Amino acid sequence: MSETTTLSLDAMGGDYGPEAVVPAALGALERHPELHITLVGQRPRLLEELERQRAGEPERLTIHHCNEVVGMDEPPSQALRYKRDSSMRVALERVRAGEADGCVSAGNTGALMATARYLLKTLPGIDRPAIMSTIPSRGGATHMLDLGANIDCTAEHLFQFAVMGAVATEAIHGVERPRVGLLNIGEEEIKGNEQVKRAAGLLSASEPINYVGYIEGDGIFTGEADIVVCDGFVGNVALKSSEGVAALISEYMRTEFRRTLLTRLAGLVAMPVLKALRRRIDPRQYNGASLLGLRGVALKSHGSADAFAFGRAIDTAVLEVQQGVPGLIEARIEPLLAGAKEGA
Amino acid sequence: MSETTTLSLDAMGGDYGPEAVVPAALGALERHPELHITLVGQRPRLLEELERQRAGEPERLTIHHCNEVVGMDEPPSQALRYKRDSSMRVALERVRAGEADGCVSAGNTGALMATARYLLKTLPGIDRPAIMSTIPSRGGATHMLDLGANIDCTAEHLFQFAVMGAVATEAIHGVERPRVGLLNIGEEEIKGNEQVKRAAGLLSASEPINYVGYIEGDGIFTGEADIVVCDGFVGNVALKSSEGVAALISEYMRTEFRRTLLTRLAGLVAMPVLKALRRRIDPRQYNGASLLGLRGVALKSHGSADAFAFGRAIDTAVLEVQQGVPGLIEARIEPLLAGAKEGA
Repeated sequence: MSETTTLSLDAMGGDYGPEAVVPAALGALERHPELHITLVGQRPRLLEELERQRAGEPERLTIHHCNEVVGMDEPPSQALRYKRDSSMRVALERVRAGEADGCVSAGNTGALMATARYLLKTLPGIDRPAIMSTIPSRGGATHMLDLGANIDCTAEHLFQFAVMGAVATEAIHGVERPRVGLLNIGEEEIKGNEQVKRAAGLLSASEPINYVGYIEGDGIFTGEADIVVCDGFVGNVALKSSEGVAALISEYMRTEFRRTLLTRLAGLVAMPVLKALRRRIDPRQYNGASLLGLRGVALKSHGSADAFAFGRAIDTAVLEVQQGVPGLIEARIEPLLAGAKEGA
Repeated sequence: MSETTTLSLDAMGGDYGPEAVVPAALGALERHPELHITLVGQRPRLLEELERQRAGEPERLTIHHCNEVVGMDEPPSQALRYKRDSSMRVALERVRAGEADGCVSAGNTGALMATARYLLKTLPGIDRPAIMSTIPSRGGATHMLDLGANIDCTAEHLFQFAVMGAVATEAIHGVERPRVGLLNIGEEEIKGNEQVKRAAGLLSASEPINYVGYIEGDGIFTGEADIVVCDGFVGNVALKSSEGVAALISEYMRTEFRRTLLTRLAGLVAMPVLKALRRRIDPRQYNGASLLGLRGVALKSHGSADAFAFGRAIDTAVLEVQQGVPGLIEARIEPLLAGAKEGA
């Protein structure tokens, strides 16, 4: 690790583009004195936004101009083939070229994953990169992967996800010997599909992995495991369903407090409590999904992230770079895979 | 439909057994003057509970004694093979024998599904029964299936679930031309596994089905579709994740309102609103999952259901019997399957 950490930010991605990324970058530079940031995107738009933030061109911040932007609904293969000068791709290319230690983008997940995989390549021993995110739970936080990069996964893929998740959680979040669970359903006998059952066998046989068994959907939020492993289809549905419920409950709450003059008054009295509650379930706090298994640090910010949320993703990227997460995964995966083969 | 409706209740199933089932039965008899109930279980325990409810042996309620009980963790095959005199099995046998029009059990899902399938058989045109439940959503309610009966599903299975879901939702909940969505993830290109994509083709080609396209996890709760179709693994994880989030938010809310004397006071002021909110997200209201695709009505109540929740499952069973849901599915599925084949 060099003494400085350099991140390249896709400044055009996401629903808000520079409007969110530029202030997030300025905030991050203040929080991390060792951080250097390259904003990748359309220079005039970025200068305009820096102007709006009354920031001029601050130290440790540079602009790398590029013309194109990957659309939020653009198919990954199209982005990969035809958008050679997009802010997303150029931001990732800087990581490949060693000009940046890591990259953050709020652009579309499919394109980001495809481009990152193409440019950075997967680590030796890793067949497929996976997306990991942090989710609030009773114990504090649960880390879950994959969240949408891989639809059909073999037991070996799930095993690799478990290793990547364990290494990253230990390095980024300081959890020692993190407990790894496999997402499954609770019905006896019809319990789990073949991949999940076989992955359970691989994980049980791997001594260095602290495997704690099957976790059901509600277990994601009870803190039974530090890491929950599943295929990308199931993980994506679980994550989005959870967001959907949280949004519905918030809406119900607003409706109930707005029903009459009396309930509005009650809402005023309860306001500080409701605000504290909102802070606890604020998804912006948990923004920043790690693309694990690549030869470089790449973070996906939620498309709808504002400056605060994008800043959280930057903070995680800084940690991953400084802890050297890709290197740690590489160092850990080989002996574990060897061990799993012996154990099988 | 005869003028009376007769249900057989597995009175020993679930975490509370007769303690929940007996008062639920008494309440249902009051709500439905045409209803007859047979409580299936250990007569002494049931008489004791009726005594406790000061109900003696009320009209329209009979007891059918049997000795055994299926354990909540008992493997389905074992229950099926060795528990011939269990309350669950005998309750289902009464439906097969025509002595009851439908059955409700809070026993273990796997055993209930296996026994129901073995005794009642699937309807012609249906390969696999599915579990459907109602979930609160912005529009009021969303109906989702499968929730755990089938792990690996082909496109044809998903198509059959869609038909069963549409028929049942129209009949039970009075939704005309209900909108059917397929649960999927939002990433372009990697969008969906093969089964889901092929099921989308089958549904688009089927004119009588009001297919509205893919629904992501959060869409379950926004009311974009009346029916959300998925395989049992994904459905079960989505449902349980959602329950987990709701429980976590409730816990956060309690914690925040208990933090200081001031927040406790705020909680007192806000109490009526919080109660109204709790009612809206009370999962007991939505208790009672339909086992669809069988030659008979069978409802699965949540294992932890209390008398109120079990009563909700009874109400749904009454509706399914009186609307003749199995017959409606049978009548609808044949032409639809034929149509899907032509359309394919």
